[in-house]
Amino acid sequence: MNRKILLQEQDIPKQWYNIAADLPTPLLPPVGPDGKPITADMLAPVFPMNIIEQEVSTQRWIDIPAEILDMLYRWRPSPLRRALDLEKHLKTPAQIYFKDESVSPPGSHKPNTAVAQAWYNKQFGIKRLTTETGAGQWGSALAFACKLVGLECKIYMVRISFDQKPFRKLMMQVWGGNCVGSPSTETQAGRNILAQFPDTPGSLGIAISEAIEAAVTDPTGKTRYSLGSVLNHVLLHQTIIGLEAKAQLKSVGVKTPDVVIGCAGGGSNFAGIAFPFTQDKINGAKIDIIPVEPTACPKMTRGKFAYDHGDVACMTPLLAMHTLGHAFIPAPIHAGGLRYHGMAPLVCQCIVEGLHKPQAIDQVECYEAAMLWAKTEGFICAPETSHAIACTIREAKKAKEEGKEKVILFNYSGHGLMDLSGYDAFLTGKLKPYYLPDEEILKAEECLKNYPKAPARKTGKW
Amino acid sequence: MNRKILLQEQDIPKQWYNIAADLPTPLLPPVGPDGKPITADMLAPVFPMNIIEQEVSTQRWIDIPAEILDMLYRWRPSPLRRALDLEKHLKTPAQIYFKDESVSPPGSHKPNTAVAQAWYNKQFGIKRLTTETGAGQWGSALAFACKLVGLECKIYMVRISFDQKPFRKLMMQVWGGNCVGSPSTETQAGRNILAQFPDTPGSLGIAISEAIEAAVTDPTGKTRYSLGSVLNHVLLHQTIIGLEAKAQLKSVGVKTPDVVIGCAGGGSNFAGIAFPFTQDKINGAKIDIIPVEPTACPKMTRGKFAYDHGDVACMTPLLAMHTLGHAFIPAPIHAGGLRYHGMAPLVCQCIVEGLHKPQAIDQVECYEAAMLWAKTEGFICAPETSHAIACTIREAKKAKEEGKEKVILFNYSGHGLMDLSGYDAFLTGKLKPYYLPDEEILKAEECLKNYPKAPARKTGKW
Repeated sequence: MNRKILLQEQDIPKQWYNIAADLPTPLLPPVGPDGKPITADMLAPVFPMNIIEQEVSTQRWIDIPAEILDMLYRWRPSPLRRALDLEKHLKTPAQIYFKDESVSPPGSHKPNTAVAQAWYNKQFGIKRLTTETGAGQWGSALAFACKLVGLECKIYMVRISFDQKPFRKLMMQVWGGNCVGSPSTETQAGRNILAQFPDTPGSLGIAISEAIEAAVTDPTGKTRYSLGSVLNHVLLHQTIIGLEAKAQLKSVGVKTPDVVIGCAGGGSNFAGIAFPFTQDKINGAKIDIIPVEPTACPKMTRGKFAYDHGDVACMTPLLAMHTLGHAFIPAPIHAGGLRYHGMAPLVCQCIVEGLHKPQAIDQVECYEAAMLWAKTEGFICAPETSHAIACTIREAKKAKEEGKEKVILFNYSGHGLMDLSGYDAFLTGKLKPYYLPDEEILKAEECLKNYPKAPARKTGKW
Repeated sequence: MNRKILLQEQDIPKQWYNIAADLPTPLLPPVGPDGKPITADMLAPVFPMNIIEQEVSTQRWIDIPAEILDMLYRWRPSPLRRALDLEKHLKTPAQIYFKDESVSPPGSHKPNTAVAQAWYNKQFGIKRLTTETGAGQWGSALAFACKLVGLECKIYMVRISFDQKPFRKLMMQVWGGNCVGSPSTETQAGRNILAQFPDTPGSLGIAISEAIEAAVTDPTGKTRYSLGSVLNHVLLHQTIIGLEAKAQLKSVGVKTPDVVIGCAGGGSNFAGIAFPFTQDKINGAKIDIIPVEPTACPKMTRGKFAYDHGDVACMTPLLAMHTLGHAFIPAPIHAGGLRYHGMAPLVCQCIVEGLHKPQAIDQVECYEAAMLWAKTEGFICAPETSHAIACTIREAKKAKEEGKEKVILFNYSGHGLMDLSGYDAFLTGKLKPYYLPDEEILKAEECLKNYPKAPARKTGKW
């Protein structure tokens, strides 16, 4: 029994899978505050047209350009690994496989879409990308991609992370990224906030506002904005994860896994591993597909499915998604990548359809899972990834109780080497379980009451 | 042309290669200050007998126990990669391959020997290992290995690193390692130093003294000491690197590379990639084999070949090696793993024989190489590894000048994600070239004048 199931470069998937082609009911379109659908032209100052085309495409398979493959080959195909020692420790009859996305240069799945987005922008004649970053995973992935492609990269990093995580900032600088603390004095949005709250620790919402402003106000018209999750084209680029995993499982005789798991903040790593198997499920396969969120930010399990903005400052179109309301400020849990009020509309549609069954897990259970992981498999996982591991352990125990030889697959979205302070807090007993109080959920409904309604459309088939 | 040359688990080497069997002239034995050879019994309080047997063995091939292979499979065989973009950037006719040892859980080659040493100690009935660590690579590798095997692990970490690198310390703690700043109050050696110099930043020499004391004074007799480089058995365990690389090169039609390169602090990662090819050279192949050291710590290129202690406190036996004298304190360059006054005796013997031709490179050239690496290949290398990359670039340029399609292989000993402060110093212009002044070399001779002499025995054949 091998611990690593490797795929040769020539066997890498040559197309991304677009689940929009297979959804039982089509995705609700993004709309403006007036309820009218957003058109491609309206997005043109923010994204290049070739990416907007992908965003709205319903074509099932989309070719991956050879130049993008050539960048992906630096770390792809990524290994599929078997967690033999975790299985042994749990005495589970389940087989546990994980797709190792931590092997990319920035250490997570993020560069899968970063290199694609950078390349499409370059093709479209763009010279410079702007983005925001919280914990720093996305900012470093985009800086890396821009360096490979030859674009300038400007990153607005949430001030508190900018100050607390100098190494993440340094990674971006090594790849030539220009990273500033947000709010900054470089944008009107930043200056406004600083005038009002000079000591603010910043937020993703503010950083997004700064990044979009910097893109749309560039007088040369050669700057665009780039987002690391949530949107359809981002999830599309991540499907290479699940497509590779499928080929790798097939090579060891597994046609379809019984359970597929990923942590979900904006939804991109989860969708990356889940969508190719969701297609199988739509076509009749029996698979439990589980996005995992923190109990501190439970939009999928306790939020509303509604039209809401993607950002705090309400600059983005309204997206039909599970949300805790754009004004929601998540507790400062260590899994910074899961601290987001909304969820990718494509994932939300799958939840509505019953194709995906989300779970919420508290961070103490997650760090316990991460520690068991380090002890058995030897690797130190990202705080976000620990949510997928905790859920995997739950499912492996369930398989043991049921006496079933299930195959469990989860996405190992990133390593934790740049985020060890959460382990410190756990080891020194500083972490307590945290479940979002009900009054916070009620606030979400209040926040959204004047927006267009998104009709829930359960088919009840799954 | 593939960027990754993968080896399946079943094709992993099942034996380590012991170069002691093939050295043209046998290694000079370690001796006491009286010049008399050290016996196995004298080492027994420090190391378990099964490791001492490996240390003195002249058997060419030594079986790797299945249980050790099972631990190595977590990240081995490691990928051999082709640096296509660096080649393109340099417009060199040379093919550049690198063996990626950064993929291990602690991020370097160190666990190759850590898991072996932990396993042999466990087999011998030992309950606890002690060691020292400077930058933290070795300490975290041993903590990792002890966790897998089920041993306690005590690490004395040089005080200044302990304070400056909290993340390295946290890695050790995640793997259950008990890490204290050195000098500590837990040993007599530590207390003595603290009484004299309460504010000392510590040094590897002091930390070694503490670790050895803690091992030999344990009244239960169940504690031993573990060293991460220099000694014969450590280098033996690392030869799996070169053996894998050889099989991987063969799979793409390369019988022997023209140049083999590794950075060298104590010599273990260099020996790991170099020794299997050194055997080929002894048997007639034409290969340039280059250990690379910093110009700030040039023991191989400017030091004496002499009997010297491995530590500052003169607790270890005398080893015949290239040295700057055990009292030498290297400048605080960022490549902490290369700040060591001596070199592995097996590597030194190869240098004396003319089999290995060392080069010294200044850290500014090395960081320039690291930045070019991040820009072309995309990965962020360890400061130590940048020395191998800088030498590779020199050799690739030479191949271009000569118009030769050489094959260059180097060992990518670790990633730099835990050591980004050196990049910061480089990017902000704080690093200056540093060449060790001649008077420091003279001091080395003074330091060693009362020790037994080590006869140099050049064969002149290579």
